[in-house]
Amino acid sequence: MFCYLIGAGPGDPGLITCKGLDALSRADVIVYDYLASDILLSHARPDAEKIYVGKIAGNHAMSQEDINALLVRKAKEGKIVARLKGGDPYIFGRGGEEGRALYDNGVPFCEVPGISSTIAGPAYAGIPLTDRTAASSVTIITGHEDPTKPDSVHNWDALAKSASTLVFVMGMKNLPEISKNLINAGMDPKTPAALVHWGTMPNQRSLNATIEELPEAAIREGFKNPSVIVVGHVVSLRDKLNWNEKRPLFGKTVVVTRSREQASDMVAMLMSLGARVIQFPTISIEPMDTYEVLDKAIQEIDTFDWIIFTSVNGVQHFAERLRLAKKDCRALHKAKIAPIGPETRKEEKK
Amino acid sequence: MFCYLIGAGPGDPGLITCKGLDALSRADVIVYDYLASDILLSHARPDAEKIYVGKIAGNHAMSQEDINALLVRKAKEGKIVARLKGGDPYIFGRGGEEGRALYDNGVPFCEVPGISSTIAGPAYAGIPLTDRTAASSVTIITGHEDPTKPDSVHNWDALAKSASTLVFVMGMKNLPEISKNLINAGMDPKTPAALVHWGTMPNQRSLNATIEELPEAAIREGFKNPSVIVVGHVVSLRDKLNWNEKRPLFGKTVVVTRSREQASDMVAMLMSLGARVIQFPTISIEPMDTYEVLDKAIQEIDTFDWIIFTSVNGVQHFAERLRLAKKDCRALHKAKIAPIGPETRKEEKK
Repeated sequence: MFCYLIGAGPGDPGLITCKGLDALSRADVIVYDYLASDILLSHARPDAEKIYVGKIAGNHAMSQEDINALLVRKAKEGKIVARLKGGDPYIFGRGGEEGRALYDNGVPFCEVPGISSTIAGPAYAGIPLTDRTAASSVTIITGHEDPTKPDSVHNWDALAKSASTLVFVMGMKNLPEISKNLINAGMDPKTPAALVHWGTMPNQRSLNATIEELPEAAIREGFKNPSVIVVGHVVSLRDKLNWNEKRPLFGKTVVVTRSREQASDMVAMLMSLGARVIQFPTISIEPMDTYEVLDKAIQEIDTFDWIIFTSVNGVQHFAERLRLAKKDCRALHKAKIAPIGPETRKEEKK
Repeated sequence: MFCYLIGAGPGDPGLITCKGLDALSRADVIVYDYLASDILLSHARPDAEKIYVGKIAGNHAMSQEDINALLVRKAKEGKIVARLKGGDPYIFGRGGEEGRALYDNGVPFCEVPGISSTIAGPAYAGIPLTDRTAASSVTIITGHEDPTKPDSVHNWDALAKSASTLVFVMGMKNLPEISKNLINAGMDPKTPAALVHWGTMPNQRSLNATIEELPEAAIREGFKNPSVIVVGHVVSLRDKLNWNEKRPLFGKTVVVTRSREQASDMVAMLMSLGARVIQFPTISIEPMDTYEVLDKAIQEIDTFDWIIFTSVNGVQHFAERLRLAKKDCRALHKAKIAPIGPETRKEEKK
């Protein structure tokens, strides 16, 4: 009985922590929402139960109360539960509510912080939220609020005068009001500002404008949620720091048709160059309908002079049949072995 | 020629990102400072050059300009450079300055965000920086500033009235002024506040008090840097969320005397229970002075009826001598093999 509250990070699957990925790969049950990428879930145990609790077009997400109850119920069945959340569980992630529900019901838990999209989204668009030349503080603000909270209205006066970098999340619907409120409270209308849409993802887009012109730019360029809004002088640093959007394959989509088992190196290389990768395997390596001929050959393996492997798959499937015949590589001592191709040779050496 | 600006995370080595660890393990040169833990550096390539640029007692750290020049020089030698920094490079990490120096000198780079100690330190002390019941924004503030920056003095009025969680980093020296300034600017003196020292590390300590009483509590309990100061109603949530400091071995130090090669499982298990682990191997597995007897046996391996392995080390060293004799496990086909113990059996199966 245990529950991990895991921050999955901002979208780039490489930005999950080692601790988070380790917990994910040991869980009996994974409770996740929309932003958890397929690549992360592929690290789950094959027999792990995966429960989606996010929104799908046309359907509401599961309520927070129901998610809390689900976590408690699954953990009380004696299971290790991984609650995988986008970003950081404690930065607008409602992880504290889940932690309190677990505590109140006697379920031990641990929180594994994640990279917040409020920090990494701007970083991947070339914007450091603090800088000795431009900002000695940063304020991260939700763009929509719980109306039952005391002091629910932001102190715009304080925000406009703080000399802090301001980051608004989930604020696109309120962007015109955010811009207006800041300027009305005394912020220079020419203050640099930026939008980062799907930050850290291959489909990331960004733009910059003054805080005054930002709402119009957002409409013109069609920016919607999920976007973070950054306001402050740090935005002007992105001319030099925008390494991500300058990568050679940034904005390109590449379809990889290799079999899923063999595609991972190529997928990783393409992603590191900035590409969005869609895996669409047109080759699938399947077991044969019958292994009669191979099994017979394995029974008589002593009678062969040469064993020639033509592919990595050939080596792997041969090794599996050998194992099922309760033999191992010692049975091959009479034959000479020839691999064809360098990768096949590596596999044979194992 | 490439430079990674990598956030190592807040101290718990499990909180580095997968992408950061991957880049670290591929680097030719690693430039690191104090907070980079030995465990992270153990993932470096054995032949990687490791350059320490942080402070040591009695010595100044390398200047930022010198670090910038070092990164550029090493990269221009055609090397892959990993600049490993505590926390996140862009949250009071001066990563933006390093990025600009690389850009100005034509060195391609990429920034890998890290978990900021400003977020994870409080989290490991049971404090979520935002919560629907307690705070809809969070402001992260440096406790000491670049005096050359315009508006270098924080707007205390704005901070006191923001209804935001406030997090001060590197602020212990100024704690009495921080407390006084906030109260003078109108903050309720009874506002909950906390200190987290060495957050996420096994030697983490924390305390809470009102903002008014915090400076006195800090002196009484001997809190110094590195500590983060948290101010706001979220602090009161830690009664329920402080899973970390309640772990069974939290605050305990355990010395592991196994050989370094064999200790990792036990070290990981102890750390997951909260212990601080010191590795002090009293056993070391060394090659023998001469392998004459074993090598002779391997030449005549066909004449043996049984091969008995008594340990994992025995299996590994035997396999190595076999390899050097240009043989492989096929040479063992005439003998029966007996492993002693379940771990030895697993190793033999490989």
